[in-house]
Amino acid sequence: MTELSPTLQLACDLISRNSTTPEDAGCQQLMGERLSAVGFELESLRFGEVDNLWARRGSEGPVLCFAGHTDVVPTGPVEQWQTNPFIPQIVNGMLHGRGAADMKGSLAAMVVAVERFVAAHPEHKGSIAFLITSDEEGPATEGTVKVVETLVERGEKVDWCIVGEPSSTELVGDIVKNGRRGSLNARLVIRGKQGHVAYPHLARNPIHLAAPALAALAAEVWDEGNAFFPPTSFQISNIHSGTGATNVVPGELEALINFRFSTESTVEGLQQRVRDLLDSHGLEYELHWTVSGLPFLTEPGALLDGVSAAIKQVTGRDTQPSTSGGTSDGRFIATMGTQVVELGPVNATIHQVNECIKADDLNLLTDIYQATLERLLT
Amino acid sequence: MTELSPTLQLACDLISRNSTTPEDAGCQQLMGERLSAVGFELESLRFGEVDNLWARRGSEGPVLCFAGHTDVVPTGPVEQWQTNPFIPQIVNGMLHGRGAADMKGSLAAMVVAVERFVAAHPEHKGSIAFLITSDEEGPATEGTVKVVETLVERGEKVDWCIVGEPSSTELVGDIVKNGRRGSLNARLVIRGKQGHVAYPHLARNPIHLAAPALAALAAEVWDEGNAFFPPTSFQISNIHSGTGATNVVPGELEALINFRFSTESTVEGLQQRVRDLLDSHGLEYELHWTVSGLPFLTEPGALLDGVSAAIKQVTGRDTQPSTSGGTSDGRFIATMGTQVVELGPVNATIHQVNECIKADDLNLLTDIYQATLERLLT
Repeated sequence: MTELSPTLQLACDLISRNSTTPEDAGCQQLMGERLSAVGFELESLRFGEVDNLWARRGSEGPVLCFAGHTDVVPTGPVEQWQTNPFIPQIVNGMLHGRGAADMKGSLAAMVVAVERFVAAHPEHKGSIAFLITSDEEGPATEGTVKVVETLVERGEKVDWCIVGEPSSTELVGDIVKNGRRGSLNARLVIRGKQGHVAYPHLARNPIHLAAPALAALAAEVWDEGNAFFPPTSFQISNIHSGTGATNVVPGELEALINFRFSTESTVEGLQQRVRDLLDSHGLEYELHWTVSGLPFLTEPGALLDGVSAAIKQVTGRDTQPSTSGGTSDGRFIATMGTQVVELGPVNATIHQVNECIKADDLNLLTDIYQATLERLLT
Repeated sequence: MTELSPTLQLACDLISRNSTTPEDAGCQQLMGERLSAVGFELESLRFGEVDNLWARRGSEGPVLCFAGHTDVVPTGPVEQWQTNPFIPQIVNGMLHGRGAADMKGSLAAMVVAVERFVAAHPEHKGSIAFLITSDEEGPATEGTVKVVETLVERGEKVDWCIVGEPSSTELVGDIVKNGRRGSLNARLVIRGKQGHVAYPHLARNPIHLAAPALAALAAEVWDEGNAFFPPTSFQISNIHSGTGATNVVPGELEALINFRFSTESTVEGLQQRVRDLLDSHGLEYELHWTVSGLPFLTEPGALLDGVSAAIKQVTGRDTQPSTSGGTSDGRFIATMGTQVVELGPVNATIHQVNECIKADDLNLLTDIYQATLERLLT
């Protein structure tokens, strides 16, 4: 292990702790000790079964916060792994282990970048903070969202936030996420009237009633997107109707629908349009809505410019801001008015068996984080 | 019991035997003893677990066959019955018990009608036959269909057949069934490509692909019916797609479809039209067809005329021929070129708890069967 860089050493220390959601397994203590040693004040915030860490160095603004999670997704079938998922190994230059990419590698890079920056600039501008949770991969109800509530309650402001999610697709820094679409779910129940297939005039078949409406929903253009977002997409993920018997017309149909929506649409607007469309088909229905996340967007400005310039400086690459993909904890942090950018390693193997990343990418990522600090806090 | 008519006595004897499908519970033996005593030759035909009885009196044509089943559907929740379903009781003129209407009452009426007819006309024209199974309410694979195969193999011809299914709706004899629609089932599998709802461009959602095609199938006019049949009807009885997860686009959709079809459509024609419609929507699909029954029709002629005249003679009623409703064993018998008419008691309570019929209707039914014998075999 003596040949490993400080970032890789710390990444291996973190990976060797089995912190499957919602476990933290001592990761935050390890990070906290390192941050405390360079002048951070630590605050452990435990909600329910979830450990969260808030750490801050400095009392002035602007505040640049590094955010991330110590929890990892389950290993899946261990026998399909080429290495033990909790015994990190570097094979042919690739660091293997659960969390290598998502996102213990990023956490290690953040800590080492901050250590180096503080050593070079002990009297840096503003403040540096860490917002670390162990509940990002799970229900995400006792983690970042609760820490943000705490910060808002006491009026603590965060100007810029770098989330260590693995944003890159082929080369480290090729993509950063400067926003995410919103996610809106509904359970749709369409009512008919049960009966015998031999007497369809005495029944109302909810599958027949639903089909034209579902076709219309699937064909609808909800918006055209904008410069930052692709158009809002709509998907029916599940549909079920029928008793199993071949001679019974079922009484109702249930479907689960999901919107991934841009900042061109609103929750209320989409809900109204779905209702209007179902009404226009004369359906008797119920809709049970769940908002999984509101969209957020960080437009070009100090943070996005700083991150982009740092990537260019370290890798020579022009990064590509993107708002595609699923949701992340960035959606909670953005509600504080914070500029949020997600920047982390290549995401090709996340949530899979044999999760791995190029080991040297973590050194590059450390340099990128440090260069960003230089640009924003000196 | 001494006050009961011979038909009601025999009906009660049959009902008191718990012959839930595929059990016969000695019903056929009881019927056979009565028929043997008036000159019938008996033949027990057991296929698998199913008892069947073929009985014939006479060796000449024409052959008038009474057909029916000794098996009954399950009782359902016994505590919801006002009487023990296997202890027949007459309450306020109604005979209560499982099978009272479907169709032990008819079987008793047939036997007593034949006894009386034979006593009056020991040298009647042609032959009288009984085709009795205990597998009509179940899979119907070891019952009438197998007996018919046996008859066909040895070249035994049946000219006319009266099936004792409860055809009447309000008054005994108000409706006879002179045909039945065909029934054609298919399992339809529509293929898409699984993926993440956040990346719909990488997936092909089979629910979205299927919806317009299912809407078109449901809206299609398959035929207009004819003088004897209502238009062919199409129903989707079951539809299922989705992993349960709200963020996964499923890989395929499965639907069960059913046609109840008139003699204006054919199995091959309907299959081709479904394929053409699915092809026109550019779908990737599989269809797994099952023909549950071909349609049959008995046009006005000796049997239908004889039955109608007998009903008029006994009840003063003009009967109404109909081809509506589900399938019956008549579909198997009709394949021999036999004229088939279903004539039995009122069907209001069949397959329900508290199955019952007006006790005196069984006496009327006995008279109608006997009057039909008089018209056709003297």
